[in-house]
Amino acid sequence: MTNKTWRGYGLGTKNNKGAYIEMYFAPENIIETSNVVVDPDDEIIKKFEIVFVSDDKPPESVSEAYLKLHLLSLRKVKPNETNLDGIFNILPNVAWTSLGPVDAEELSNFLYENKGKGVPVKVFSIDKFPSLTDYVSLSDVRIADASRVRLGAYLGPGTTVMHEGFVNFNSGTLGEAMVEGRISQGVIVAENSDIGGGASTMGTLSGGNEIKISVGKNCLLGANSGLGIPLGDRCTIEAGLYLTSGSKVEILNENGDVETSLKASELANKPDLLFLRNSLTGAIQCKKNKNVNKLNKDLHDN
Amino acid sequence: MTNKTWRGYGLGTKNNKGAYIEMYFAPENIIETSNVVVDPDDEIIKKFEIVFVSDDKPPESVSEAYLKLHLLSLRKVKPNETNLDGIFNILPNVAWTSLGPVDAEELSNFLYENKGKGVPVKVFSIDKFPSLTDYVSLSDVRIADASRVRLGAYLGPGTTVMHEGFVNFNSGTLGEAMVEGRISQGVIVAENSDIGGGASTMGTLSGGNEIKISVGKNCLLGANSGLGIPLGDRCTIEAGLYLTSGSKVEILNENGDVETSLKASELANKPDLLFLRNSLTGAIQCKKNKNVNKLNKDLHDN
Amino acid sequence: MTNKTWRGYGLGTKNNKGAYIEMYFAPENIIETSNVVVDPDDEIIKKFEIVFVSDDKPPESVSEAYLKLHLLSLRKVKPNETNLDGIFNILPNVAWTSLGPVDAEELSNFLYENKGKGVPVKVFSIDKFPSLTDYVSLSDVRIADASRVRLGAYLGPGTTVMHEGFVNFNSGTLGEAMVEGRISQGVIVAENSDIGGGASTMGTLSGGNEIKISVGKNCLLGANSGLGIPLGDRCTIEAGLYLTSGSKVEILNENGDVETSLKASELANKPDLLFLRNSLTGAIQCKKNKNVNKLNKDLHDN
Repeated sequence: MTNKTWRGYGLGTKNNKGAYIEMYFAPENIIETSNVVVDPDDEIIKKFEIVFVSDDKPPESVSEAYLKLHLLSLRKVKPNETNLDGIFNILPNVAWTSLGPVDAEELSNFLYENKGKGVPVKVFSIDKFPSLTDYVSLSDVRIADASRVRLGAYLGPGTTVMHEGFVNFNSGTLGEAMVEGRISQGVIVAENSDIGGGASTMGTLSGGNEIKISVGKNCLLGANSGLGIPLGDRCTIEAGLYLTSGSKVEILNENGDVETSLKASELANKPDLLFLRNSLTGAIQCKKNKNVNKLNKDLHDN
Repeated sequence: MTNKTWRGYGLGTKNNKGAYIEMYFAPENIIETSNVVVDPDDEIIKKFEIVFVSDDKPPESVSEAYLKLHLLSLRKVKPNETNLDGIFNILPNVAWTSLGPVDAEELSNFLYENKGKGVPVKVFSIDKFPSLTDYVSLSDVRIADASRVRLGAYLGPGTTVMHEGFVNFNSGTLGEAMVEGRISQGVIVAENSDIGGGASTMGTLSGGNEIKISVGKNCLLGANSGLGIPLGDRCTIEAGLYLTSGSKVEILNENGDVETSLKASELANKPDLLFLRNSLTGAIQCKKNKNVNKLNKDLHDN
Repeated sequence: MTNKTWRGYGLGTKNNKGAYIEMYFAPENIIETSNVVVDPDDEIIKKFEIVFVSDDKPPESVSEAYLKLHLLSLRKVKPNETNLDGIFNILPNVAWTSLGPVDAEELSNFLYENKGKGVPVKVFSIDKFPSLTDYVSLSDVRIADASRVRLGAYLGPGTTVMHEGFVNFNSGTLGEAMVEGRISQGVIVAENSDIGGGASTMGTLSGGNEIKISVGKNCLLGANSGLGIPLGDRCTIEAGLYLTSGSKVEILNENGDVETSLKASELANKPDLLFLRNSLTGAIQCKKNKNVNKLNKDLHDN
């Protein structure tokens, strides 16, 4: 966590009870400030809602939660640097439709009325988090399917998120990256790494994992692979191999002989490793990584 | 199958030949009834189309198929409880666009005319089944990407379908569940289970599988895992392990010794099992499951 | 590559600097021709932009790139038959929105202005390639989630692309096929094959693979499997098995005995093979394939 504080001027949508269900902050309407005093005659406060947040304090309202999610996606704070405790309880469930956001509890009537009048309406999502691209525009990234990147994702410059890629809120990439797999909440991927098609990074919200996963620089998670440990720089996980933290791994020396066996968790954050499954013995093995990942420059000059 | 019968009042869209291509039924316009007599002077029949279906008879028209799909998604019948024989032949292929549904055979002209006039049109899908959320609104579920849940899916209260989740028609969850993997046609997932990211449940429509898969209560299918047998309560499949019905599995006792080997299909519906692949020998193993899945309450209080 | 040449009449969208960011070609407005002379008094050239391309020359403009992508999706040229060198540098990054395409660099202002006026706007994608279905309509295919098939994909008649399927530009299926996995750039799938849910075909753009992958006729890639070699006809890869080109594979005879071991790359293009991982020894094995894939006819009569 940092202890930075922020002021944002937001435009929001309210449900039928008058409560905000979402809020948009243009980047020029967010400033880092410790000054909570606002001139009441300022023109801007007639049009916008003024919202304050501190990185070291949890959000206490829909507006504050949205400002924090914007700060992440606008790259003003990195994942795990701002307190998001309780955000699931604060955010309402919203139906994101082609006619704008609607409180999920009001969707039934909304559908009925529009269908009755023959007005086309498409529901894109019923979720507490909207898509990043509906709030934040980044001209130096590509997001092939915007429904797969939540507001609150942090995408480094030069990141490409392909159709099978996914980036949760409070997670992301620090620089150029190819994302064709899933970056779970809390997971950070360093520069020049490639998360292959369908690759999984274990998250801490579901499924019982408690270790925060990360991926170092110049790493490659092969297609359909999985990662259950924090991975050091210049590491590769072979396509199709799921490396859980409890996996026992044979350590090979330069001659290809097995020297010892370790739990994968003991290899956390160690650089220059190649993980694979021996296709004849079925054992997970680890050796020195000689083909370090390089990104295809053509794909990342956005 | 049940032998319940239903009457619905629907609003539909027709193609250029005058045939229905889809139909919407508001929940209040569906009643369980064995009475097929309708008063011809009733005001409602001037506005709506009257449709009757029985759970034990296959649908015979687009309208009947749509009413059956609504019954499933509105939780009035459970998966495999209503006869859907022949539904693929009954349903037309529809282009689901931002301007409404269009017969797939009429899409070419539709695109040409709109492009020529500069009218933006987005085609979301060309499919026989629409998205659930465009027809049925459930305020007690979350569906992060609505394009991944077909009308006819049955989602129990408290279900979250994440971006990588998928639920086909005539399949679903009976209660609270986290769905980050794919629930194939005919597959039912019981309460408090977690289908991990990219996890696969074998379906019977494609790929040659003939056994109907199910998942018991408090189960966890790990990320990128797969399931080819009906799974009992409180079972876990390790991340990355695909358990096919023909897999031979080593059965371990409390001391971790191999007692015997069985085909996975012999373990169908048995409770309290943990399946994993030994990372040194490569063998699929099964032992008593000690860490039974619990859902994260924060994520499921919709 | 062929040496065919084509003339197209297109309708495009320009960015604020006056440069084309996309172009639409109706099928009737594309002709195969070697004649580059056009009558300047022709009415059509007042409404449309005239564009010429040759299959053996790379595209040199946005308009030419779009015409080539249309040729592929309209089945006028097959994948790998038209020169697409440099296409990533030619195509601009575009925000595909519900109000039409917007230059990615102009999205920030576009969002701000629309949010300020309360106009709903949905951003579907920020990418160099649009969705096939927004440009080309095929009445003999199904595409369950249109965001997963890029313009430039080649879909054979009777192809179904399910929600988890993906087809990149310059790749695709030659005839009937079930696509529930990912077909990477350059990959071609022959008739009557099934790419199972979440299955991966290794591409050559990212991740270091340099071998062009293909799939023969009547093949089945099981769910969550992966393919790193060109696969012959009537082959099956077991669900969950990732076959990389460097994998060593035990070859079994009719009695189930191991005869020898080969690298998977030595089995490229060989027919009638079944690949699986022995669930007790962990070894990847190959034997004669006795259950050849047949598609479910109900699903493919579009």
